[in-house]
Amino acid sequence: MNITVLAGGIGAARFLAGLASVVPSESITAVCNVGDDLTWHGLHVSPDIDSVIYTLAGLEGEHGWGVRGDTTATLDGLRALGIDEWFGIGDRDLATHLLRTDRLRAGATLSEATAAVATARGLRVRVLPVTDDPHPTVVRTAEGDLAFQEYFVHRRAAVPVQGFVFPGATAARPAPGVVEAIRDADVLVIAPSNPFVSIGPLLEVAGVRDALVASRARRLAVSPIIGGAAVKGPAAEMMQALGHEVSALGVARLYTGLIDTFILDTVDAALLPDVRALGLEAVAFDTMMTGDEGRARVARAVIAAAS
Amino acid sequence: MNITVLAGGIGAARFLAGLASVVPSESITAVCNVGDDLTWHGLHVSPDIDSVIYTLAGLEGEHGWGVRGDTTATLDGLRALGIDEWFGIGDRDLATHLLRTDRLRAGATLSEATAAVATARGLRVRVLPVTDDPHPTVVRTAEGDLAFQEYFVHRRAAVPVQGFVFPGATAARPAPGVVEAIRDADVLVIAPSNPFVSIGPLLEVAGVRDALVASRARRLAVSPIIGGAAVKGPAAEMMQALGHEVSALGVARLYTGLIDTFILDTVDAALLPDVRALGLEAVAFDTMMTGDEGRARVARAVIAAAS
Repeated sequence: MNITVLAGGIGAARFLAGLASVVPSESITAVCNVGDDLTWHGLHVSPDIDSVIYTLAGLEGEHGWGVRGDTTATLDGLRALGIDEWFGIGDRDLATHLLRTDRLRAGATLSEATAAVATARGLRVRVLPVTDDPHPTVVRTAEGDLAFQEYFVHRRAAVPVQGFVFPGATAARPAPGVVEAIRDADVLVIAPSNPFVSIGPLLEVAGVRDALVASRARRLAVSPIIGGAAVKGPAAEMMQALGHEVSALGVARLYTGLIDTFILDTVDAALLPDVRALGLEAVAFDTMMTGDEGRARVARAVIAAAS
Repeated sequence: MNITVLAGGIGAARFLAGLASVVPSESITAVCNVGDDLTWHGLHVSPDIDSVIYTLAGLEGEHGWGVRGDTTATLDGLRALGIDEWFGIGDRDLATHLLRTDRLRAGATLSEATAAVATARGLRVRVLPVTDDPHPTVVRTAEGDLAFQEYFVHRRAAVPVQGFVFPGATAARPAPGVVEAIRDADVLVIAPSNPFVSIGPLLEVAGVRDALVASRARRLAVSPIIGGAAVKGPAAEMMQALGHEVSALGVARLYTGLIDTFILDTVDAALLPDVRALGLEAVAFDTMMTGDEGRARVARAVIAAAS
């Protein structure tokens, strides 16, 4: 059974870690968002890919990004040099970006560089960027267009959002294996990630949405909204700002036509009839991925829902 | 009184620190070797310039390079990723290379990038690379030509040396201010640095040797060889390998025609007549730069010798 996961950052990373604990890692492919990628002092940083890789490697940082217990001597050093550095990168984390950028500079694609990082971390899950081409997420706000990390980290996601623009989308081609992984999977899961800035950018790459629509897989999505709030990040605020109902039902509406089954949390079980009214199968269980046990439990429940 | 110092790494750095403690920093210019520069994971590293800047900033590492008390989390991280990294860069040190490379990538010259680093460290001594052009030192050995750091760090200076090649020398132009700093100084000091791989590369840049010969300055050199041994580094082995007498006198012979006064250590006072026989003035005093006091003492004695 091949399982493909459309992945953003931390929510997807935790789901993937649960999955890898209950099915063979070799059967899992993560198709990852690159809309958050940034260049940091000349280094290519892929925050979502890194969250996935660090979490699968058991190294994830306390806040869902970076390396657990990392130090910040270089960052502190930059600040001591008078550089106003708002994007924090830890010392151990930096090694990843040096390796990735080494590969890119040597002519590797982002897929190849990602595979090098994943292999160096001992992973057997296949981690694919959705595209090897530049495909940034631009956040449209009342204060103008902001690069994703400018919005998310520098402005702490506190600027009201008006929409999203994907200037690279028309030119971006799916990375090798992405379309096949979506089309030919047995199970396809849209991870509990932000629908607008994690999953949205994946679907903007030409061919990805079509592959999802045409996929022979059992297609499921896990709600990132539980009890009307995002487990992490600005998804709820974005839904609100863009006029969507801030609930698991609101997420289900966004995915209608793309999936067969929508999974929401037990606390939202009252929404099951409304989700079914969208023409989706709907399942409710405890979707909080607390600890290794919680992750494994959610993975098992998703696989059961796919059967 | 303007003082210009032809500088390699640690020996020059300590001499400059002594000088800055006894004369106004603004009156001092260091013309620095870039033959040891290397690209480390895409970052431009200037070891001699950094030794000078860190030492002047009171940050120098225990071994004469890097930042004192620095950690190596990124380096350890690279090794954990399976990268066989023989050139060790500390975490704090890395911030310097990120800043320098940022500036170079933005179109700055090495002079401008160096000034940015020096200013960020609060220096008022003027630190100039001898050239803004690539000017690497290549070490000719029985095992073939080796880039300087390949020879010095990777091979631990243990490969017998046959000579040195400066493939960038014909194209390298002196950086802005270098010729003027040499020609118009009141006092010019060849620091106690390696004659072949610290001072030698400076003299290979077109116009630098001529400026030194034509300089109106009182020109002095401080022997890096004391009692037949280098205070630090492979200078003695290089002199031996290249057929020079391994002594302060051997160094004085290398500098004949370029300086007025040669300074050797008290332990070598017996060589004073031989140095004078070369047509040089010769002075002996305690040249060991141990601690801040030792550095200041040597600086004062050099200035006295110039008067």
